[in-house]
Amino acid sequence: MTYTVQIKVMPLKELLDPQGKAIVGGLQNLGLKAIEDVRVGKNITLQINADSAGQAQQIAEEASKKLLANPVMEYFEVSVN
Amino acid sequence: MTYTVQIKVMPLKELLDPQGKAIVGGLQNLGLKAIEDVRVGKNITLQINADSAGQAQQIAEEASKKLLANPVMEYFEVSVN
Repeated sequence: MTYTVQIKVMPLKELLDPQGKAIVGGLQNLGLKAIEDVRVGKNITLQINADSAGQAQQIAEEASKKLLANPVMEYFEVSVN
Repeated sequence: MTYTVQIKVMPLKELLDPQGKAIVGGLQNLGLKAIEDVRVGKNITLQINADSAGQAQQIAEEASKKLLANPVMEYFEVSVN
């Protein structure tokens, strides 16, 4: 069966996110002053052929560790739909 | 009150996603052959100062339309936590 898996890859909370800071500035210039902080990461949607949701989750975690996330700068969260 | 809002910005389903295709190739070379399709988008986390969750959602949608998403190539989904 094919499972749809979402992986959220975000910069670690301890690190600065210059892209996010630039977006806050841009939004404030556009008049959206209520937005106080922005952090930008990736959202990756996978179609995985697996026997169970658990197996799909395991494959997605392996893919994140091997290729999709850089553990020095990012953390990831996997969710199987 | 400060609300945490997640915005998921993904390439439109009708469009090719070359970055996703490259990742599928990379994962297959790493032996992860169960992964059939990958699409890559952005995940943006906002801290919004608003009176209600509904107002925070409205501000996030305005920010998406004005700056964060390109409607020619992308769609977005807003969720308030």
